[in-house]
Amino acid sequence: MTTALAGRAAELDAADPLAAHARRFVRGGDVVSYLDGNSLGRPLADLPERFAGFVERDWGERLIRSWDEQWMERPFGLGDRIGALVGAAPGQAFVGDSTTVLLYKLARAAVDARLAADPERREIVIDDDSFPTDRFVVEGVAAERGLTIRWIEADPASGVSLEQVREAVGERTALVLLSHVAYRSGFLADMAGITEAAHEAGALMLWDLCHSVGVIPTELDACGVDLAVGCTYKYLNGGPGSPAFGYVAEHLQGELEQPIQGWMGAADVFLMERHYRAAPDLRRFLSGTPPVLATVALEAMLELVEQVGIAAIREKSVALTDFAEAALAEHVLPHEVGGQRPRLASPPAGPHRGSHLTLTHPSFRAVTERLWQRGVIPDFRAPDGIRIGLSPLSTTFAEVEGGIAALGEELRRAG
Amino acid sequence: MTTALAGRAAELDAADPLAAHARRFVRGGDVVSYLDGNSLGRPLADLPERFAGFVERDWGERLIRSWDEQWMERPFGLGDRIGALVGAAPGQAFVGDSTTVLLYKLARAAVDARLAADPERREIVIDDDSFPTDRFVVEGVAAERGLTIRWIEADPASGVSLEQVREAVGERTALVLLSHVAYRSGFLADMAGITEAAHEAGALMLWDLCHSVGVIPTELDACGVDLAVGCTYKYLNGGPGSPAFGYVAEHLQGELEQPIQGWMGAADVFLMERHYRAAPDLRRFLSGTPPVLATVALEAMLELVEQVGIAAIREKSVALTDFAEAALAEHVLPHEVGGQRPRLASPPAGPHRGSHLTLTHPSFRAVTERLWQRGVIPDFRAPDGIRIGLSPLSTTFAEVEGGIAALGEELRRAG
Repeated sequence: MTTALAGRAAELDAADPLAAHARRFVRGGDVVSYLDGNSLGRPLADLPERFAGFVERDWGERLIRSWDEQWMERPFGLGDRIGALVGAAPGQAFVGDSTTVLLYKLARAAVDARLAADPERREIVIDDDSFPTDRFVVEGVAAERGLTIRWIEADPASGVSLEQVREAVGERTALVLLSHVAYRSGFLADMAGITEAAHEAGALMLWDLCHSVGVIPTELDACGVDLAVGCTYKYLNGGPGSPAFGYVAEHLQGELEQPIQGWMGAADVFLMERHYRAAPDLRRFLSGTPPVLATVALEAMLELVEQVGIAAIREKSVALTDFAEAALAEHVLPHEVGGQRPRLASPPAGPHRGSHLTLTHPSFRAVTERLWQRGVIPDFRAPDGIRIGLSPLSTTFAEVEGGIAALGEELRRAG
Repeated sequence: MTTALAGRAAELDAADPLAAHARRFVRGGDVVSYLDGNSLGRPLADLPERFAGFVERDWGERLIRSWDEQWMERPFGLGDRIGALVGAAPGQAFVGDSTTVLLYKLARAAVDARLAADPERREIVIDDDSFPTDRFVVEGVAAERGLTIRWIEADPASGVSLEQVREAVGERTALVLLSHVAYRSGFLADMAGITEAAHEAGALMLWDLCHSVGVIPTELDACGVDLAVGCTYKYLNGGPGSPAFGYVAEHLQGELEQPIQGWMGAADVFLMERHYRAAPDLRRFLSGTPPVLATVALEAMLELVEQVGIAAIREKSVALTDFAEAALAEHVLPHEVGGQRPRLASPPAGPHRGSHLTLTHPSFRAVTERLWQRGVIPDFRAPDGIRIGLSPLSTTFAEVEGGIAALGEELRRAG
């Protein structure tokens, strides 16, 4: 049965200039609708050939010669390419470690520098609805450096406002850590205003870009951002557990020191010097051997993202998100189940909405289980949220419509 | 021209029960002789199919469902399998991060626990010929925790003796960090004796297994080792920059706390709790999202290593190393070039020799460059060392003979 909404989805797909790209991703098995590209992006279909080439040539034939020929520079080459997607001039971004480890390294570098300059700067500002890793890292850093945390109470259906940040920061603030797009609500924060507010208070600003990189036009340099960290397995489709990236504004690179001193951060890596001498530049933020194998899929996706461009990606992201909202209004939100209607817990359409929507209902844990069994795959976030992620390059409007229709069916069935 | 030594190599290959395995690795391009499997192991030839299966099924079809179905447990499943190779009962080893990051996490955990128990334990013991990352990490940890380092002077042609450790440790020692096999000389340390000496002094013992895991029979549990870290891209052929593994003896897991508090180390990962509660067990040593994609090659190699068994691998390692020594004696060591003969800077055959040999000569930097151009690939380590690594499963005796003969030729040509 074709509903009006399904017809509209078909029209949107037919008119979508990026439609052809969706067929470049693996689409197989029982998957009817994948609505979680913001948790784990789909693999590109040509990755098997990519990996074969990597294994047989770069690794298998060149062997350790590849370190000299290309791999030593890989953290910075990929970093520059990711940097270009988030408004960073070359020489400020690198790939390595996990998001958690990079948050630790950069948060430590920031608070240690601020503390050294002013022993009274003993506060880290973060919001209480940040992704757990951000909160947990900051709790650890605060405990070991004798700092306190100032928690901003975020509205779970939106996020942190500029006014809240202005109220929270002051002469005791060493560092502000916030998410560019909130992992739960999809709220898109005011990067320029908040960064300025942090700076006016004399604090450093660290942005978590996990839910925005690759899908939201971002201007780190223009906003004067100090530090940023993001992951590469969401909208950059780097594969499960692919490495993170970090950004350190050029003017801070000589000043900040991160705590995990490894051979790859040394001034001369192969001199094997007796004592650690940090590299004078971005290299000092590296620690261990660069994760080369783990970046093969990321590199492939970067090519596609660069070809399409972030502006066009954002345009489709907005169209998909708006369409998902309409589909939820038709298929899901009207249905009262167990005496309760689902509630949309995301910002309204506009400049403060990222590329995913969250809705809540007490029966969503069970509903998600049944959806997964029928190949409709949104994300579930405890205690009661279903998250609909719209990854522009791999998602069709038909997929969104079909998936949300199935969500409506399973919700009614749960009644 | 077939020399007597080349004939002997052919005989050894013909009689080698593991000979067939060498053909299971990628052998292509211009590579005549690969003598650096101890820096980067060769890829298995069936990896392209492995990666295709991973991309198309585990990642592409199951998508985020794979986290529940298999990936959340992967750090521990692979950890148990690596643990079995180094004498660790299940539940004590995990895969994640880089060697450098894990050294930091475990060294911090160890010294913080020792300092908490006894504020006078302010010394870390390490040797001055340790791999740079080990030394640099320890320098950073000592600086931030207000500790001092006691440097053992290692004999660069052998390593650290039990007597040296006994002299270095005492009531001020918090932690001893040493390499099981020295990265330069290939010296194999007395794990049982040194661990006991550290314990008698009241210190914790952390072993770096990078150059021994997968090739040297090791008994972490039986030796009473507290902590260990190793990499997976050398004799475990996990690919460039594949993740590290860590070992924490079961009785210490509830006591030690590592500093990088991330969501994957929390007691209940998906509860998204307000504050960090460390998992009660091994999970607390994880930080970020597990590196799944980066462990596909490692998993393939573990299957082969398990099938062959560490005892048989060590047997071939010893035979290859002994044969390499004979080949060096014939092709390389007798030649005086620039007024100097090359010198073997490794222990003699026997229980203190790992799976590589180092020889030194002032012209070796230039010699290595020419060898690489002709597809003979040993490692060069500044200032003047050529390292001959013998990776038992992928290396033939003929390859060793041919490579060392070429080394002799290029050395004479450098004269």
